[in-house]
Amino acid sequence: MSLDPAAALELGTVRVVGTGLLGASVGLGLSASGARVVLGDVSPTALALARDLGAGVPDPGAEPVGLVVVATPPDVTAAVVAEEVKAHPDAVVTDVASVKEGVLTALRGAGVDLRRYVGSHPMAGRERSGAVAARGDLFLGRPWVLSPVPDGDAGAASTVRRLALALGAVPVVMPAYEHDRAVALVSHLPQVAASLVAARLRHAPDAAVALAGQGLRDVTRIAASDPALWTQILAANAGPVAAVLADLRADLDRVLAALEAIAAEPAADPGAPAVGARGAVARAVADGNLGRERIPGKHGGVPTRYAVVTVVIPDEPGALGKVFADIAAAGTNVEEVALEHAPGRSVGLLEVSVVPAVREHLEAALEAVGWHVVA
Amino acid sequence: MSLDPAAALELGTVRVVGTGLLGASVGLGLSASGARVVLGDVSPTALALARDLGAGVPDPGAEPVGLVVVATPPDVTAAVVAEEVKAHPDAVVTDVASVKEGVLTALRGAGVDLRRYVGSHPMAGRERSGAVAARGDLFLGRPWVLSPVPDGDAGAASTVRRLALALGAVPVVMPAYEHDRAVALVSHLPQVAASLVAARLRHAPDAAVALAGQGLRDVTRIAASDPALWTQILAANAGPVAAVLADLRADLDRVLAALEAIAAEPAADPGAPAVGARGAVARAVADGNLGRERIPGKHGGVPTRYAVVTVVIPDEPGALGKVFADIAAAGTNVEEVALEHAPGRSVGLLEVSVVPAVREHLEAALEAVGWHVVA
Repeated sequence: MSLDPAAALELGTVRVVGTGLLGASVGLGLSASGARVVLGDVSPTALALARDLGAGVPDPGAEPVGLVVVATPPDVTAAVVAEEVKAHPDAVVTDVASVKEGVLTALRGAGVDLRRYVGSHPMAGRERSGAVAARGDLFLGRPWVLSPVPDGDAGAASTVRRLALALGAVPVVMPAYEHDRAVALVSHLPQVAASLVAARLRHAPDAAVALAGQGLRDVTRIAASDPALWTQILAANAGPVAAVLADLRADLDRVLAALEAIAAEPAADPGAPAVGARGAVARAVADGNLGRERIPGKHGGVPTRYAVVTVVIPDEPGALGKVFADIAAAGTNVEEVALEHAPGRSVGLLEVSVVPAVREHLEAALEAVGWHVVA
Repeated sequence: MSLDPAAALELGTVRVVGTGLLGASVGLGLSASGARVVLGDVSPTALALARDLGAGVPDPGAEPVGLVVVATPPDVTAAVVAEEVKAHPDAVVTDVASVKEGVLTALRGAGVDLRRYVGSHPMAGRERSGAVAARGDLFLGRPWVLSPVPDGDAGAASTVRRLALALGAVPVVMPAYEHDRAVALVSHLPQVAASLVAARLRHAPDAAVALAGQGLRDVTRIAASDPALWTQILAANAGPVAAVLADLRADLDRVLAALEAIAAEPAADPGAPAVGARGAVARAVADGNLGRERIPGKHGGVPTRYAVVTVVIPDEPGALGKVFADIAAAGTNVEEVALEHAPGRSVGLLEVSVVPAVREHLEAALEAVGWHVVA
């Protein structure tokens, strides 16, 4: 998990078009490895900022380019890719838009020669946007999807793969069609669901939201995302997202019908429950268990069920350092951590996930040195 | 945030009926404070286990009881409360079922004298169930909702409030009707949403779920919950949950219709976008922003936007201890932490949330001692 300067230098001169978060991050990462990066942006101000941050130099337009990275807003990506393919007849051209099929369709419709084009999608981002939020290590350890066209140059795909490796990302090859359906499911669906659940809280009484626990916090964390950016992303992948939302709605309708049937049961006759209603509710939750188990665990490997050790943490500098030092002293490796704060109290509960076999050992070790282990 | 032995001792003898996770935890917590706890359970095996774990002694039935805590499965709660009110004419009776209105309606329907009854709901739980998972400190720092009946004894409500304080919980008074609507929104809705999103992953290609990021993980974490337990909870609160799910479905229908309209736009005529469709999508995400902002932040106070400092962590014992020691050495207090593992790599990214004013200081301090700060 590090930048690969050798891979960066093999790319030759790289032209980056669009110097927002992703473009400037590509420029910073490659420049840090000593590669030559020339920058283009319709905004002279954005261009100057990216240069000042060290992402590269404004493209003098006089030198041959080995690779063009199009990192413009999604709604102009196809047009810019078409221009760059024409303007740089010896270069490989890629883009980093988060939806791939629409770009490809537009390029085909415009009759663009696609042999040197490889669509890609680095699965990285930040809550902040623009070059000021850019980091050369933004892509470290993240999947970087490559969607080569079937009739494209193998060499072009290798070049974009080298770009991903140069920036420390993990290349994953996937056709555009398949990529868009995958992100509809694993990225766009959870975004919509989180937004819809959070939206229900808008007009809730203060006393109700005060009962919010970790479950609600987790489900709605990504509901804080930027509406303008997400409107572009969802609109660009409208078909696949609509398909998966329609499936979700069918499941929701079944749960809703079951709960309405249960609510309508006569209170006076508890012996006459709605037939099948509880089964439908149980099936929805059980199906959720099965789906959740499919999400890969740590290191991309087989999902693991971890044991959770919960420790009471005083709210002061040094407390977390001390507890993790004590965990290390116990020889235990931590798989996941979460810090939860109790309402109205000035201490936190640290949840440390470990492999089940070491839970008891860790709990005993922490209690022995004075920590209050809750669960 | 601690048990309150003085409050526990003021309760007199406490009878706990039902020795599962919640009942046994109440017994353990009160017993740890020196209170006398007598236990009842229809299962002699469960009763013996709770006794052996230190939750109390099997009720000899010979002594006056000051408080009865009914901690049976929700579907028999009302019947057991009715029995206990009759059997212990001088005792206050409470229950800990997670839905309150149905219990109250059933008690009223059965003509039970409710002056000494106070429904309650400690908002605590664990992924494991049964007395073996019980902990005397299960309720530490958690909200404990009290739903006194309008015509009930003030002294009865005080007694149940003392129970919550004895166990280190934070008492919150809320009528049953209001409580059920609140938990439908902040607990039952996110559970259903998480289950429905996770269920969509069941038949997804491996390559698609391999792209899962932290967003999907967060949204679906509680989808791992027990189907049997959640069927009981959702069925017991069917009306309020159905109402909030119907609202969610109306919002979902708007997003779905907008995305279908966008998907149906003629590709050949990008100048003819579906009128209002992108606005509907943007509004859904923006409404989610507003709802998310209502969730109380740390310490039950005003929500705060924290700055996130991301540090690359080698996957070895001691690394977390060292980084938190270095964070403490920088004088920085950590608000939230999350550890994210990159697919296919053996290092993790630790996300440390701090108040925005100290972010730059902390990043510089960590980089100065050799940490790789990503963002």
